[in-house]
Amino acid sequence: MTVNPLAPGWLAHPDDANALADAVWPRHSERTAEGVVALAGAAATELAREFGTPLYVVDEADARERAAEVKAAFDRAFEGVGSRAHVYYAGKAFLSIAVARWVTAAGLNIDVCSGGELAVALAAGVDPARLGFHGNNKSLAEIDRGVEVGVGAIVLDSVVEIERVARAAERHDRVQAVRLRINSGVHASTHEFLATAHEDQKFGVPLAEVPEIVALIRSHPSLRFLGLHSHIGSQIFESDGFAEAARRLLAVHAELLAGGEVPELNLGGGFGIAYTGADEVTPIATIAWELARVVAEECASLGIPVPEVAVEPGRVIIGPSTVTLYEVGTVKDVTVSVAGSAATAVRKYVSVDGGMSDNIRAALYQADYSVRIVNRVSDAAPALVRIAGKHCESGDIVVRADYLPGDVEPGDLVAVPATGAYCWSLANNYNHLGRPAVVAVRDGIARVIVRRETEDDLLARDMGALELGAKVISDLRRDASADDRPGHRNGDK
Amino acid sequence: MTVNPLAPGWLAHPDDANALADAVWPRHSERTAEGVVALAGAAATELAREFGTPLYVVDEADARERAAEVKAAFDRAFEGVGSRAHVYYAGKAFLSIAVARWVTAAGLNIDVCSGGELAVALAAGVDPARLGFHGNNKSLAEIDRGVEVGVGAIVLDSVVEIERVARAAERHDRVQAVRLRINSGVHASTHEFLATAHEDQKFGVPLAEVPEIVALIRSHPSLRFLGLHSHIGSQIFESDGFAEAARRLLAVHAELLAGGEVPELNLGGGFGIAYTGADEVTPIATIAWELARVVAEECASLGIPVPEVAVEPGRVIIGPSTVTLYEVGTVKDVTVSVAGSAATAVRKYVSVDGGMSDNIRAALYQADYSVRIVNRVSDAAPALVRIAGKHCESGDIVVRADYLPGDVEPGDLVAVPATGAYCWSLANNYNHLGRPAVVAVRDGIARVIVRRETEDDLLARDMGALELGAKVISDLRRDASADDRPGHRNGDK
Repeated sequence: MTVNPLAPGWLAHPDDANALADAVWPRHSERTAEGVVALAGAAATELAREFGTPLYVVDEADARERAAEVKAAFDRAFEGVGSRAHVYYAGKAFLSIAVARWVTAAGLNIDVCSGGELAVALAAGVDPARLGFHGNNKSLAEIDRGVEVGVGAIVLDSVVEIERVARAAERHDRVQAVRLRINSGVHASTHEFLATAHEDQKFGVPLAEVPEIVALIRSHPSLRFLGLHSHIGSQIFESDGFAEAARRLLAVHAELLAGGEVPELNLGGGFGIAYTGADEVTPIATIAWELARVVAEECASLGIPVPEVAVEPGRVIIGPSTVTLYEVGTVKDVTVSVAGSAATAVRKYVSVDGGMSDNIRAALYQADYSVRIVNRVSDAAPALVRIAGKHCESGDIVVRADYLPGDVEPGDLVAVPATGAYCWSLANNYNHLGRPAVVAVRDGIARVIVRRETEDDLLARDMGALELGAKVISDLRRDASADDRPGHRNGDK
Repeated sequence: MTVNPLAPGWLAHPDDANALADAVWPRHSERTAEGVVALAGAAATELAREFGTPLYVVDEADARERAAEVKAAFDRAFEGVGSRAHVYYAGKAFLSIAVARWVTAAGLNIDVCSGGELAVALAAGVDPARLGFHGNNKSLAEIDRGVEVGVGAIVLDSVVEIERVARAAERHDRVQAVRLRINSGVHASTHEFLATAHEDQKFGVPLAEVPEIVALIRSHPSLRFLGLHSHIGSQIFESDGFAEAARRLLAVHAELLAGGEVPELNLGGGFGIAYTGADEVTPIATIAWELARVVAEECASLGIPVPEVAVEPGRVIIGPSTVTLYEVGTVKDVTVSVAGSAATAVRKYVSVDGGMSDNIRAALYQADYSVRIVNRVSDAAPALVRIAGKHCESGDIVVRADYLPGDVEPGDLVAVPATGAYCWSLANNYNHLGRPAVVAVRDGIARVIVRRETEDDLLARDMGALELGAKVISDLRRDASADDRPGHRNGDK
């Protein structure tokens, strides 16, 4: 075994660069006797042949199971302290009609944070009462639509939204349930835990101003105050940040009881998953139990009843369910200077047929992923590889570092696991690449849940592709007469 | 004047937070007597009313002028040393049918780096002979199509592509002109200049291997070797990185003359633009002149004729031409701890109706931008602001820091200039937000060149929105018989 000096410290040299680590592969993944990886009963090679690459492959049963397990974990934990839990699937991680149906079938509610996400949930037939509507800057149209269709709760993010939601509720003759987003000062970012008095971010209102703001909410007969909401970050592995946020919120929550009911406390999402074999994740049941304990203890010491608790997991449900399949196009051994030494070492650049258009997380968040060859096994010595995309940009990297059998070659199929969250949802058309299809597989039956984007799709919004007469042209010359254009004010000229 | 301790060092406190800095605003921008900003003769307020927000507004004449000026600068500089220049517009910065027509009308060629970009250029009616085809991992289908339509040159990125392109050329009975991309070891990244022997990136082949690889290219009668190609980075302000790359490439270029013609040297793109008033940019004419001087001197010392030189600017042509218009939805004063002191200060978070979906550069590259209110002027004291988007993510920031009149309020229109490059091209549908329209304005006439993405567009690929029968379902069960499915190998089961 040769350790490549370019390998990051967290990356262990593998005994077998064909092995599928349980922590990062969908549950129903296995290597068949022929060496091909089967995903939920379908050979990766068959999926690639049938649907093309790149391809997001969702292990449907995995996603459904995780949704049910998260719900059960919070249900059990909060029943144990004499309360109830509400689990909202955070649609921003990945929302499609199929996914909306899976999570609601598992008993979860759904968080949406835009009119677009609301439209997907409604198209899926989700009962609007099971939707929470988030956002630091919902448009008036979004608020109006949310209230009109009857979303279960709207999260107020700032004082100015109180009037906006109250007016919409009055317009539609409803009483709209609302939560209030708090900037608690607790921000648990990935592996570190910061707690500053004043957090430099756009969401929420300061804890100190809550009593006054809640009084304002309660002054509107068209609003019903549900409780406080906090969200402390993303991809969090420890429960202490959630516990600290719970403590800070409950102190204020207790004060608010003097002025009326506060049936609920919402602790948001951010539960982490394993992206590589090096990530050690606290089981969600442990986090749920720990949160229930902290909330119960804190309520006991404050002498208040334990409220119902809502949480908003997304990544932990959909993230581990999905792999992205790619075909290898080129393989290049690049000789690189080793930092702090005169030596050089070889990094094998494996270029695939997707990249930062289907997974921008490595470039955007310096996220790490792992990779395996899935069309065959090989006993070639493991080589340090970097999976690069096909975009015209040197930062176009999907997997910064992993080991693959050293004979990886053009035509091989590779898969990157744990791509279910924030890959499709952040996908783009950089370099005019169409976005991949999303295929859900269950017991060997594959179903396209989002179809591949075609060249025609890409050109469909380009008005140059239409005849001149179909272009939208507007004469906005400052010296043009505005009189024959209704609604245009001269003052703006 | 109060300096906010949260302001970054490069940000000067403005005398007038209404002023439009020439360096970052499109050329035909001005404040009218009424205080509204007019863009290419159209009031920003009218554009917002007519086309909605967020909106990319392109000053068409600015883009066309810059394209012509870049071409003239390189033409003059290389004519001055007895050679010629070829300017390729780098389509990856922003390509639409209209833009393809503008730049080719100005005499430029176009670089494409995918089948999708090729399709746009062809749809625009660009002569394929004026196209260069890039990419570290072009698919066989992309290569075939490029050769078939007759692209002027293909940039070979690795040895394996030689055979691929040669075979396609044979298939179509053509002689395909090719360039060879070099990993020169020169990488001029933004403000710093590194020159390592071995660069850790996916593009190109090492200089040391060039003679052997070019011999292989020349052994194929279906290929015509044009010359070497390098691209040293992005958003570069100095010419010394280009000069160093030119020197390294020319030394090898000279060697190659012994084996046949080498008509051209391609030095790539990467010329920087001003994103804020603090950026000092070297005029493109100066860079062109400096490059011509270095190339001529180096050729003289090598005793070889000066080759024709190709360059590939994108950002410097389209970047400064465009502003993004947003409407302000919420304004929030957030009290923040000042690093390294017990003090606090206020940052004004101004949330707009777009964000990291229409401009991911702040989040992805830590890019800085500037901002102005465009529907009015105000003499309120300048306040330090951060322009945040409406996405459910704390990193959703468009402008990290600038000063705006302190009375900025919901309903104001703001514009962020210098958003023409890599904003639309990297735009995504995060949180199911539709992408903005792109409007080209010239002499007050506004024309939609890319239309806004609608909720229907967003749902169009979601197969859950179709009837069951229309879904693509495939039975890939490993125990299913493959015999009745043509082309499926049992070996993969």
